[in-house]
Amino acid sequence: MLKKTLFKKLLPVAVISAVVLSSLAGATFDKAEAKKGEDQARIKNVIFLIGDGMGPTYTTAYRSFQDDKSTPYSENTAFEEYLVGMQETYSWDPDQSVTDSAAAATTMATGIKTYNGAIAVDMEKNNVKTVLEQAKEDGKATGLVATSQINHATPASFGAHNESRNNYNEIADSYFDELINGQHKIDVMLGGGTAYFDREDRNLTEEFQQDGYSYVTTKQEMANDTNDQVLGLFAPKAMDKMIDRTEDAPSLADMTDSALDRLSQDKDGFFLMVEGSQIDWAGHDNDAVSAMSEMADFEAAYKEAIEFAKKDKHTLVVTTADHSTGGMTMGRDGEYKWDPAPLKAAKRTPDFMAGEIADGANVEETLKNYIDLELTQEEIQSVKGAAVEGSTGDIDAAIERIFDIRSGTGWTTGGHTGVDVNVYAYGPESDKFAGLNDNSETGQKVLEVLSNNRKKEK
Amino acid sequence: MLKKTLFKKLLPVAVISAVVLSSLAGATFDKAEAKKGEDQARIKNVIFLIGDGMGPTYTTAYRSFQDDKSTPYSENTAFEEYLVGMQETYSWDPDQSVTDSAAAATTMATGIKTYNGAIAVDMEKNNVKTVLEQAKEDGKATGLVATSQINHATPASFGAHNESRNNYNEIADSYFDELINGQHKIDVMLGGGTAYFDREDRNLTEEFQQDGYSYVTTKQEMANDTNDQVLGLFAPKAMDKMIDRTEDAPSLADMTDSALDRLSQDKDGFFLMVEGSQIDWAGHDNDAVSAMSEMADFEAAYKEAIEFAKKDKHTLVVTTADHSTGGMTMGRDGEYKWDPAPLKAAKRTPDFMAGEIADGANVEETLKNYIDLELTQEEIQSVKGAAVEGSTGDIDAAIERIFDIRSGTGWTTGGHTGVDVNVYAYGPESDKFAGLNDNSETGQKVLEVLSNNRKKEK
Repeated sequence: MLKKTLFKKLLPVAVISAVVLSSLAGATFDKAEAKKGEDQARIKNVIFLIGDGMGPTYTTAYRSFQDDKSTPYSENTAFEEYLVGMQETYSWDPDQSVTDSAAAATTMATGIKTYNGAIAVDMEKNNVKTVLEQAKEDGKATGLVATSQINHATPASFGAHNESRNNYNEIADSYFDELINGQHKIDVMLGGGTAYFDREDRNLTEEFQQDGYSYVTTKQEMANDTNDQVLGLFAPKAMDKMIDRTEDAPSLADMTDSALDRLSQDKDGFFLMVEGSQIDWAGHDNDAVSAMSEMADFEAAYKEAIEFAKKDKHTLVVTTADHSTGGMTMGRDGEYKWDPAPLKAAKRTPDFMAGEIADGANVEETLKNYIDLELTQEEIQSVKGAAVEGSTGDIDAAIERIFDIRSGTGWTTGGHTGVDVNVYAYGPESDKFAGLNDNSETGQKVLEVLSNNRKKEK
Repeated sequence: MLKKTLFKKLLPVAVISAVVLSSLAGATFDKAEAKKGEDQARIKNVIFLIGDGMGPTYTTAYRSFQDDKSTPYSENTAFEEYLVGMQETYSWDPDQSVTDSAAAATTMATGIKTYNGAIAVDMEKNNVKTVLEQAKEDGKATGLVATSQINHATPASFGAHNESRNNYNEIADSYFDELINGQHKIDVMLGGGTAYFDREDRNLTEEFQQDGYSYVTTKQEMANDTNDQVLGLFAPKAMDKMIDRTEDAPSLADMTDSALDRLSQDKDGFFLMVEGSQIDWAGHDNDAVSAMSEMADFEAAYKEAIEFAKKDKHTLVVTTADHSTGGMTMGRDGEYKWDPAPLKAAKRTPDFMAGEIADGANVEETLKNYIDLELTQEEIQSVKGAAVEGSTGDIDAAIERIFDIRSGTGWTTGGHTGVDVNVYAYGPESDKFAGLNDNSETGQKVLEVLSNNRKKEK
């Protein structure tokens, strides 16, 4: 049904763009405009990376986490060299001014603001064309990569249309059913989600295979397969967090690399969205250990993208976040200190440890197995207490608290926060993203890049 | 004593600069380099504005605070148009990785990292030349403007040298005693601090007047005086926060305007540092009302600086923060909401209201007088409870909590946090500050701007 109405009710994005772009910041960067014409000629591919929940504290803390403390100055991560500006994230939700991931991703994918929960639909629930769909219309290859289920809010907002992010099955169906010029619109899908694609009522994994897609479920199968079109699902719903993954599961960088190998075969270019999905989930859980390890997973994927773009020279890489999560702060309770060392000492996430303890594992042994620190009796006792009296969540919270106190990490919420987020851009037309942009401007600019490329081709 | 050793032990800043600058980010902005030569010729004046404690949440929240909610997109404040990058803030303190204001200001004033509490001295407590001193050596006029006492950590780090920010009297003495080429090094000093300048053991206000300075203590006196050299002290220690000020007290914009009028008489140009001192204090107090009104005070001063620079065309305006404070977040306790409306309803700071209540004023009447909201009985009761059982601080906290809950503002600390802060730059060579810079690079670049101007003059 969605398939039939698709593109019938598209908002006139070009009109909105003109209005919004006229109020653009970035006057400082006019000097770079001279080279614009030349740059525009060069863009063929766009890689859009989204660190879900990756607010400014996450990127700052991650730099400290990766820093070689034996040198006097902090070393940069891969991100900093291409910091060009920041992005506003508020949504148009009537009840919630702080955005959710669906509204933010929809806005970055389409250029229009919407309500929380919206998957590439506007305030009136009309479908709005996404940058991935535009790329496919332009004859490019397309891909979505995530560590959440691949039909979760962020990837869904690029590859489907739905009035609610919660309609996971409908969104999975859309990935197969919504055609552009008679073709499936997403060539490469890598992430979690077998529970939604291989259901009692419908088996999308078979349907995709019947239409020529490969279907892979392990890192090895993904590596051995060279098909341009692939559905790779590596978990029933979300994949494990980086430090909990088994050898069978690919990293976000593995999936990004595999996607780039396939997509770059298309002579017309490609659009790829890569999401570091679980930085956000670490934030919701107020889990500083996972916040940092998921940042590492995301940085490695970012490096793959930048490396590809540097060789290719016709690729724009835009990297940002949809919002920040958890109200994470470096420093808490009056202490002028943030120390990443305790977070590095964790070999598994607090969630993983709490799960084992809830399943009956000895508290002290579990903590000793997975945390490379001499814990105090008081710390061990706090987890034991939670194990006796509380839920798995309570055990998890008790373990997280050890890391929070030792590292000096503060939190204010289990939800999102409204702070502006960083924007990194590399490649031709990266100057476009300089200064402060609203997330709708970010979306519009990516669409503009495709439009400029289209005009050039003609 | 300090006077005698001044400049004897200066670190070789140029050497450090060369090493650090070689690892600079900002490759993205190389395109702007072509115009560099032209730009360098044009800089005569530097205005350095520091929003103390103004982390990314403060600038984002302030945009929402000033936003016209009847329009669909958020309006920009004066800041956003010139957002060029971000700044790292960590100090080299052996015990505290999160910086204090003294270390951060020292670093921005000199280009070298140091320990918390240091006033323009290095890790070995050697004096290091500041950009204000360099400007004076170059024959320029110089000024310091702040709403704290003018000998507080941030202005002190530009105008004095001391092993500790707490030596307020010594710092005030330094402003008079430390000469450059036989002259006082700061021509314009505007802020609070009579308690430190007019003491039993020494009256610096008289000493300055004997050397030709005007001494003013009200907004009107400041306005009526046209002397190039002036000491203006408008409070015993800190000035009141913006919304608590009497008509006699100038705003930060008034002081900035007055400073610019005087300094711009010098044909050799000038260096001016302007601090929005109490954004930070609002953060320490976890006071969202004052955080926003102090941002407004700072923005108005920033506008004066930008307006001057636009007319003058030979002025660089660099605006940033030293660190963030309080772990302020937009959103708390799982709510996806941040609403500035309750913060706008306050006519005085919670501190002011708490003071009146502690002095015996009726709780309900005081809240009604100064807060333009229909408070619930529960809210009023929370303040009454604090008034009966607690200190002035408890009353203050109870009032702040009303605003926090209504606005959705979270806090994690009474101290500072380590998140990167925004950098805004306008005017010739503003491109220099693009991308991510360490705060030491910011300081080095301002020194470079002066150096380029010097070479040009020769």
